[in-house]
Amino acid sequence: MRGLHLDHGILTLRDDLPEPAAREGWTRVRVVQAGICATDQALARGYMGFAGVPGHEFVGVAIDGPLRGARVVGEINAGCGVCAACRVGDPRHCADRTVLGIAGLAGAFAERLVLPTHNLLLVPDAVDDDAATFTEPLAAALHIGDDVDLAMHRRVLVAGDGKLGLLCAAALTLRGCEVTLAGRHPERAALLGPPVTFVRGLLEADGGTEVAPFDLAVEATGNADVLPRLLPLVRARGTIVLKTTSERPTAIDLSGLVVREQRLVGSRCGRFAAALDVLARGEVDVKKLIDARFPLAQGASAFARAGERGVLKVLLNVMQP
Amino acid sequence: MRGLHLDHGILTLRDDLPEPAAREGWTRVRVVQAGICATDQALARGYMGFAGVPGHEFVGVAIDGPLRGARVVGEINAGCGVCAACRVGDPRHCADRTVLGIAGLAGAFAERLVLPTHNLLLVPDAVDDDAATFTEPLAAALHIGDDVDLAMHRRVLVAGDGKLGLLCAAALTLRGCEVTLAGRHPERAALLGPPVTFVRGLLEADGGTEVAPFDLAVEATGNADVLPRLLPLVRARGTIVLKTTSERPTAIDLSGLVVREQRLVGSRCGRFAAALDVLARGEVDVKKLIDARFPLAQGASAFARAGERGVLKVLLNVMQP
Repeated sequence: MRGLHLDHGILTLRDDLPEPAAREGWTRVRVVQAGICATDQALARGYMGFAGVPGHEFVGVAIDGPLRGARVVGEINAGCGVCAACRVGDPRHCADRTVLGIAGLAGAFAERLVLPTHNLLLVPDAVDDDAATFTEPLAAALHIGDDVDLAMHRRVLVAGDGKLGLLCAAALTLRGCEVTLAGRHPERAALLGPPVTFVRGLLEADGGTEVAPFDLAVEATGNADVLPRLLPLVRARGTIVLKTTSERPTAIDLSGLVVREQRLVGSRCGRFAAALDVLARGEVDVKKLIDARFPLAQGASAFARAGERGVLKVLLNVMQP
Repeated sequence: MRGLHLDHGILTLRDDLPEPAAREGWTRVRVVQAGICATDQALARGYMGFAGVPGHEFVGVAIDGPLRGARVVGEINAGCGVCAACRVGDPRHCADRTVLGIAGLAGAFAERLVLPTHNLLLVPDAVDDDAATFTEPLAAALHIGDDVDLAMHRRVLVAGDGKLGLLCAAALTLRGCEVTLAGRHPERAALLGPPVTFVRGLLEADGGTEVAPFDLAVEATGNADVLPRLLPLVRARGTIVLKTTSERPTAIDLSGLVVREQRLVGSRCGRFAAALDVLARGEVDVKKLIDARFPLAQGASAFARAGERGVLKVLLNVMQP
């Protein structure tokens, strides 16, 4: 089949990719559309030494299994099914998991993929293909509410006004937080619906704007230098959520974290059901994030575009209409 | 009065220190005995640019106020009394606080000190002066149970077999955890009472012993290089508590924290009442930590001894019998 293949930073369009094999308890999916995420761009720069088909944000149609013919999205962590994490329904932390398009499992930038059937969710009719493609990153943004007691963290700073930062700001506003967005693009502050306060310069090395301490800060810049600047902006016993990974180490004086007894929380994938619910209600206008669309055959151009400064979401139309 | 005075790393014995002034709502205390803590040693190396009388671990006798004549210990954070933190009884996070012997308030390595009266606690008869001197560090160790739900964190690694590490190991064992102590001195594993498992080499750069992942790790070495080595030893959704501050920054790849959705929690001072209760029951044999005693007049020798490799607690006998 046709798809994009990545090998140590080199992306190629191939027509000879192996078909995903049918597996007991798994469902094959014909990919309709996929989104390019910052993680895909990092993989394309060589992060994790990934080799294979990337792509983990998608909407498709089930080819076989109990959902055959239905429009689906799929959670990306495929667990072993028998370990303690899997037995409590949390394959996200199975030590032997594969992860769609990220680790050991061919991803969504190809005509077909395969996932455990219980990873798949039906897409409600009210959610079109464009919106459905955002299920995965929106679930990740909403997941902050699983990691932090938001009732105790109302005043929130989201660092970064890229794709993930905007989704985090929208998700937290929706959950009742008073959100300040720190970034470079003030016009984005109301992009996804509920308006948030915008500040510029807050994350610069020289300090910038003075603000009252926040209860919660969300690091969504992917820049290893930002975290140390967030700690002093958060109150004693407040929380900093790390939503992004960085390709290089952070140099940080953690004395402030100890003295202020703050918490630093790593946060990754969320549950899709909550995200589909938000999308079906139209509570976050994710489609405002779409900057460009490319056919699968122009994957290299799509990656190049996604890497341009100021560009938000780039979609790959995998299935030709 | 007589006491030790520190100014930018130079410790001198002085007989002309100003008497602590009587203040409404504060109580003056005649210091009987004080302990030298790693923080004092850091201050003596110039940490925080501290100038004044250091010392925050002490037992004394109240000179005035409602507790006059009673044997007391004292919580070390003196709040403003009117801010939100102070109003909920948590001067530990008052932004305008002074801290005994650490920030803006003359400490316990002198004949007399002054603290807010509500910071003082009566010492039960069952707790002698030696044990009472450990109230502050034992409270800090027990405070881990305020920061972390220990019922969800039973398998614990304590990194560091110095004074604080040993107290943390004992406190967590007492609270029902299964504790492994990583350090250099196997003979210390059962020093304070309940035996804990000892491992050597676990924190070395080259890995060392293989272990099953812990639910919780406590960093009590004060070495900025140890934290990065703890993250891979803790399970997904597990917690790492930072109990010590370091004088230099930590270089750390936080991707693992995000992928494993771990939590890093800063933890500082605890409540004295819980510690006095443990001491009164004799549940932790803190006196085994005592390595040496010096009169106040030999303060410089006491600091030198406290800084020797392998030395645990050094006490200063402030009041001459």
